[in-house]
Amino acid sequence: MYRTHNCGELRMSHVGEEVTLSGWVQISRDLGGLTFVDLRDRYGITQVVFNMDENAELCQQARKLGREFVVRIKGKVAERSNKNANRPTGNIEIEASNLEILNASKVPPFTIENETDGGDDLRMKYRYLDIRRKPVMENLMFRSQLAIATRKYLSEGGFIEVETPVLIKSTPEGARDFVVPSRMNQGQFYALPQSPQTFKQILMVGGMDKYFQIVKCFRDEDLRADRQPEFTQIDCEMAFVTRDEVLDTFEGLTKHVFKELLDVTLADFPKMSYDEALERYGSDKPDTRFGMEFVELTELAKGHDFPVFDNSEYIVAICAKGAADQYSNKDIKKLTEWMQRPQIGAKGLVNIKYQADGSVKSSVGKFYDDATLNSWKETLEAENGDLVLILCGEKEKTQKQMNELRLEMGKQLGLIDPMQFNPLWVVDFPLLEWDEESERFHAMHHPFTSPKKEDQERMLTGDHETMKALRADAYDLVINGVEIGGGSIRIHDRALQSRNFDLLGFSKEEAEDQFGFLMGAFEYGAPPHGGIAFGFDRLCAVLKGQNSIRDFIAFPKNNQGRDMMIDSPSYIDETQMSELALESTVSAES
Amino acid sequence: MYRTHNCGELRMSHVGEEVTLSGWVQISRDLGGLTFVDLRDRYGITQVVFNMDENAELCQQARKLGREFVVRIKGKVAERSNKNANRPTGNIEIEASNLEILNASKVPPFTIENETDGGDDLRMKYRYLDIRRKPVMENLMFRSQLAIATRKYLSEGGFIEVETPVLIKSTPEGARDFVVPSRMNQGQFYALPQSPQTFKQILMVGGMDKYFQIVKCFRDEDLRADRQPEFTQIDCEMAFVTRDEVLDTFEGLTKHVFKELLDVTLADFPKMSYDEALERYGSDKPDTRFGMEFVELTELAKGHDFPVFDNSEYIVAICAKGAADQYSNKDIKKLTEWMQRPQIGAKGLVNIKYQADGSVKSSVGKFYDDATLNSWKETLEAENGDLVLILCGEKEKTQKQMNELRLEMGKQLGLIDPMQFNPLWVVDFPLLEWDEESERFHAMHHPFTSPKKEDQERMLTGDHETMKALRADAYDLVINGVEIGGGSIRIHDRALQSRNFDLLGFSKEEAEDQFGFLMGAFEYGAPPHGGIAFGFDRLCAVLKGQNSIRDFIAFPKNNQGRDMMIDSPSYIDETQMSELALESTVSAES
Repeated sequence: MYRTHNCGELRMSHVGEEVTLSGWVQISRDLGGLTFVDLRDRYGITQVVFNMDENAELCQQARKLGREFVVRIKGKVAERSNKNANRPTGNIEIEASNLEILNASKVPPFTIENETDGGDDLRMKYRYLDIRRKPVMENLMFRSQLAIATRKYLSEGGFIEVETPVLIKSTPEGARDFVVPSRMNQGQFYALPQSPQTFKQILMVGGMDKYFQIVKCFRDEDLRADRQPEFTQIDCEMAFVTRDEVLDTFEGLTKHVFKELLDVTLADFPKMSYDEALERYGSDKPDTRFGMEFVELTELAKGHDFPVFDNSEYIVAICAKGAADQYSNKDIKKLTEWMQRPQIGAKGLVNIKYQADGSVKSSVGKFYDDATLNSWKETLEAENGDLVLILCGEKEKTQKQMNELRLEMGKQLGLIDPMQFNPLWVVDFPLLEWDEESERFHAMHHPFTSPKKEDQERMLTGDHETMKALRADAYDLVINGVEIGGGSIRIHDRALQSRNFDLLGFSKEEAEDQFGFLMGAFEYGAPPHGGIAFGFDRLCAVLKGQNSIRDFIAFPKNNQGRDMMIDSPSYIDETQMSELALESTVSAES
Repeated sequence: MYRTHNCGELRMSHVGEEVTLSGWVQISRDLGGLTFVDLRDRYGITQVVFNMDENAELCQQARKLGREFVVRIKGKVAERSNKNANRPTGNIEIEASNLEILNASKVPPFTIENETDGGDDLRMKYRYLDIRRKPVMENLMFRSQLAIATRKYLSEGGFIEVETPVLIKSTPEGARDFVVPSRMNQGQFYALPQSPQTFKQILMVGGMDKYFQIVKCFRDEDLRADRQPEFTQIDCEMAFVTRDEVLDTFEGLTKHVFKELLDVTLADFPKMSYDEALERYGSDKPDTRFGMEFVELTELAKGHDFPVFDNSEYIVAICAKGAADQYSNKDIKKLTEWMQRPQIGAKGLVNIKYQADGSVKSSVGKFYDDATLNSWKETLEAENGDLVLILCGEKEKTQKQMNELRLEMGKQLGLIDPMQFNPLWVVDFPLLEWDEESERFHAMHHPFTSPKKEDQERMLTGDHETMKALRADAYDLVINGVEIGGGSIRIHDRALQSRNFDLLGFSKEEAEDQFGFLMGAFEYGAPPHGGIAFGFDRLCAVLKGQNSIRDFIAFPKNNQGRDMMIDSPSYIDETQMSELALESTVSAES
């Protein structure tokens, strides 16, 4: 037997007991007559003491232990004279009578401490050492707790977890699929699911009524900082539901996990229309933890012979409370340059400083006299001491830019509390987006999203302009500016689904080839249904107030889609290639 | 709102309430003045009655409802005059006041009944209709219940569920991998995991201590009747454990799920060595629900001038109690022919009938007189009335053949109770199997399995014959002749792991290239560890006393690896191929 107890459970009540512990050497301190070893495992750290007077040989052995050696120790639990209140086991120590090295360790390439000296690449390559670090271990344990709480809530709500297939069929809609060549059907491919969307709809047609799954999904996209080629979803679908029944259920789930994991009680989630979110925050995922909402100045600011404004479709301001003094001209120049970077692409940034002394300074003071600028104060809800920042241009683009500026200002002014949680539902999205370049509609959510009931008739018969105005029965859950999940009421009618594929530019043949099974299913008694999917990795991160999902994934891939530890992807055998009837058009580097 | 109640919950206590129900029309019966509609959903069936006298128009509508139409009905709950005791809702019915068709249905291609007239192919193509059938729906719900019970037991036991990656690295060891071409690293491939084996070991090196996961795994094998290219495992690993601690934990899990799901209390599981299992049953997964154990006759039967026996390495018998009369010469001929099919390949089948009247009849009566045959009775534990069946030949082959015969006789004689459960642990497997053809060793379990402690020194230093005799610290859980799971204590020492790769025919470079990260991890304080994996699909089937795993998978693939519903795998776009830098060496049929 390797242990009678783990390294986190011994207390004063165990004093006098003979115990066996196994674990890793966190640190070994040789104080001459005594050698102290901190023994670590997942459960905690226990101090072990070796006494030179009592057992010199054993103590000599202990002195030679290196960091991260794996050892088994036998001994007696004793009360510590020098107690450590910061450690649950801090009242006791083990007086060692036996020591066995189960495995040695080389010196680790970085320290196994809460704050490590290892860079990202090193941590990924030696992920087994990184996982020993408490913050990483705790994140992974937190993730598993979140899965438990999620499953409990949904199971108790009558949802059945059903595993949908991983080897499915490639469809060109949406992001790029990962594909899997078939050996038994040479020349043909499976695809890995971007989501189990059509399968969960099929389960509703099959009468499953309430389905969920915590499930891996896959997207072959160029990876940004916080994207992974494989990610996890809480995927759900319900039959015979209206939008608000879906929202209530998953608002309930969200409240449940916040309560269970953080002991945070969330208030009821506000609902905000897509249009309102854009007007107030310039984003369909607004961070509502702070104000600084958009104030449209288009009417007020035009007609003062300032050509830049006069020629703009849209002029918008935010008011940074009390920041007039904080921002020097140099600071504002920096901010302007930040906004002019190609990632944001603003042409310029106009500012008004309503100074504490009542005077006004503005970068457009030439065009607007103080009286005019002061007259805007009411609209802007600005007071003396406030800094107002203004952008102008094409409306959609300017909203996006101002959203970035608002978030940046929120950060700079310290308005964002990482442990405050502001959830909201964004609803009433447009159904279709017209893409000028490809001259076709794109589905704002996905091709299975239903238009709102009142728009269904119009969708079947309306003209091009009507299509642009259709509203989807779709919804997103946003927390702290992060899209946690989204979903919709689905189309369950063959004619409507077929019309949607038409609008999205599918030929009849393509629609039939790719989604014929679903449209076929709609002809055999498909119930009204709808659902939602939450990004599980992102939900973990938001709950813990962290930005990166990577720290909640046991074995993440880097931005090149590589697993640094196992060194994958990699070249495969010629035999494998020929069994799959494949040839590579690039030559192996090896 | 589509419903106030589901179709399974209304009782006498609801009589008088106005309710709304939605569901599928199971059947509609027009009895002239009254039309009865059975409305079905996942939860049950509720009878709805339409009264011609009270609302002729509504009743006319109801008469037109076809099977599987989806409808919403409003009405009042009333006590039935003609109660149906077989149905939980059988005391009440709904007096309909409103009917709305939510979706029509074509006539289904097969009946949505417990016993359907649909063949396998039709059921798979229209899986959404098949899932509406109660036995399929119940199997899927049973599966989800089994997952819940499994997670509960393991979580409460301190196991952390950790998701391991699906996009990993191809290794030629074991079965064939499915591979996934990488677009970002052209010419290179990911592989889908056959199991998370190395990752769970890495988690142990990382100090996770107790890991589990219910996880999809993938094998690109030629599919037999009961194999699927993607299947699900309960995958586990523990650090600082001995074999018996692993067995106790997972015996506990097995008992827990039998109790929770079937209310069956299992007795403690016997342990049987691999050698003993082969001697007694000719199989390392013996079905111990019935006796008819092997009796070796090699010594007794040789030396009587019967050349077939005299030239055999091994002679073995089973005794079918009381079957002498049951089996005519014609029956025995049929049995012999069954054994001579190429799948089994027996040369012949010898029989002895110890008749009820005390006389003896045997197919080898020419060579053995009655006295001799009677003298075998004690060894055979045979009595008058018993039928003894004998096979001979090369030992290993003959054991396999006799195993088939024993199972067949068990079936024919009705000795196998599908709802009896006989679990056992098979232990002490050989570590390595010598393959004459390829002149190399194969790992009996997998390359990470540790030899038993007492064999480790011999493994590092021994000769070829020593290697053949090494025992693995491996174990299988067998229930009713089905291998439910298997596992082992793993190697956690670099030298031993490296030696194992040598023996398995890996070059140093191959071992380093494929498993360098694991051997590297063993140098940084790898703890002793071991684990197990249960076949989740198979566990479902065994618990329900069924043979096929396919009925427990929502969307199974057929024997050609095809999903008949979505028609996958399929050809992909030329653009996709070229982005992946791939060319197919076969031409598309389309």
